[in-house]
Order: sequence, then C-alpha cells, then structure tokens
Amino acid sequence: MKKILTYGTFDCFHIGHLRLLERASALGDQLYVGVSTDEFNVSKGKESLCRFSDRLEIIQSLRYVYRAFPEREWSQKIDDVIKNGIDIFVMGDDWKGYFDADLKEHCDVVYLSRTEGISSSRIRKELSVT
Amino acid sequence: MKKILTYGTFDCFHIGHLRLLERASALGDQLYVGVSTDEFNVSKGKESLCRFSDRLEIIQSLRYVYRAFPEREWSQKIDDVIKNGIDIFVMGDDWKGYFDADLKEHCDVVYLSRTEGISSSRIRKELSVT
Repeated sequence: MKKILTYGTFDCFHIGHLRLLERASALGDQLYVGVSTDEFNVSKGKESLCRFSDRLEIIQSLRYVYRAFPEREWSQKIDDVIKNGIDIFVMGDDWKGYFDADLKEHCDVVYLSRTEGISSSRIRKELSVT
Repeated sequence: MKKILTYGTFDCFHIGHLRLLERASALGDQLYVGVSTDEFNVSKGKESLCRFSDRLEIIQSLRYVYRAFPEREWSQKIDDVIKNGIDIFVMGDDWKGYFDADLKEHCDVVYLSRTEGISSSRIRKELSVT
C-alpha cells in the first residue's frame, strides 16, 4: 500500500488540476490532497474565486482522490506526512526543490511537470477579456 | 438497478454542476451524462471556454458518474434513453416541461432545482470584472 500526498488551491477547477491529480494518484494506491483554506490563501496574498468548502467538495468528488482535507498553514506538511504514513510527497515542478530539505527524511519527494499552457491564471486572464 | 441520464455543457466546472450531478446520481444506481460537443454548442450559438475533450474528461473523473459520452445533437436523447435502458431522465429546472412530450413514454422525467446563485454565466461575469 503506497500513500501519496499533494497540496493545492484548485481554484476554477480545470483539466490541468485533474491531470496533475491523476498522475499523482498513479504513483501509488491512495492519494491524499490538502486543499488551501481561504484564510491560508489570504495570508499568502492570494484570493480565490471559489470558496474553500466548494473547492474541497470538488476535489473530494474525484475518483483519483482518497481523502481531501484542509491545508491551514505551511508547517503542517511534516505532520501530515508522518500521521498519514505518506510514502511519496508530490507537487508541480513550479515548486521544484522547495520541499526537499524538510520532507526528504520522511518520504520520497517528487515534482511533476505542469500541463503546458493550462493554469487558473490563464483561465482568469482569458475570461477577463471575453 | 436504476439508470439515470442527464446532459450538459459543464463549462468552467463548478460546485453547481457537481451538486446537480450528485443529486441526479442519488436518484438511482448508475448515472449516464451526455456532454455537449463544441460543434453542438456552436450550432446552438454557444461557445464554451473549455474544449469538449477536457470537459468530458472532468465529468468522467467524478465518483458520481458511471459513464460520460458526447451529446452531438438534440435528437439523440430518445435513442440514448432506449439503448441504455434509462429509468429516469433528469435536467435542471430551467428546462422544466421541455422534454416531457418526447421522453415520458420511455422513462420518468425529473427536473431538479439549480443551486441558487451559481452558474457558469455568473462565474464568467465575476471574472470579467476582476
């Protein structure tokens, strides 16, 4: 039984999110997903269009996802890895190298390439000129 | 075994879509979902932001959905009902009464209320002023 863990905001849910979760889940048997709360996003200077409870519900409704839960702060990642017995921590490669120092002693750390040309920012931008 | 059928474009996938599919699936055991192709939408004067193959993939990835397939034209609904042995045809209540004459002799026809205040149009509108 291999357990995988990833995190994200997943605002304006799109095919890039889905592909990343599908590829993450294919690395093991159970995919855990931390979804950033609205408060956590505000603390990072980000505002999402869709509220946390809706974003969480969408992620939890995907076949590839075993369990979705709130991400409330940066520092919870190590605890999440240890308490859930995570084998592989996965993020998009825009985070490459960022989590190695903290997490590599507890699990494997993998960075996946993003789906080219797809992002929430691009979607927001396209819609803003529609 | 009760089979349910619904249709939609599901552009900019959001919580209103998810809730409708969840409630439709709760009426039976297997939910079939016809997803409008880009060509069909163009014939109705509609243009979606996300392309058909991506919209189909997102719908197919939901736990509530047994099978997603293309909706290419208005007239295929009766054939879809008959060939899949559908028990209940479900649409949002913005379509109330529209399908009764054609489909009621083949299956039950149910119209579900929409999630208040949520629609692709509203999301597009909100984003356009961001």
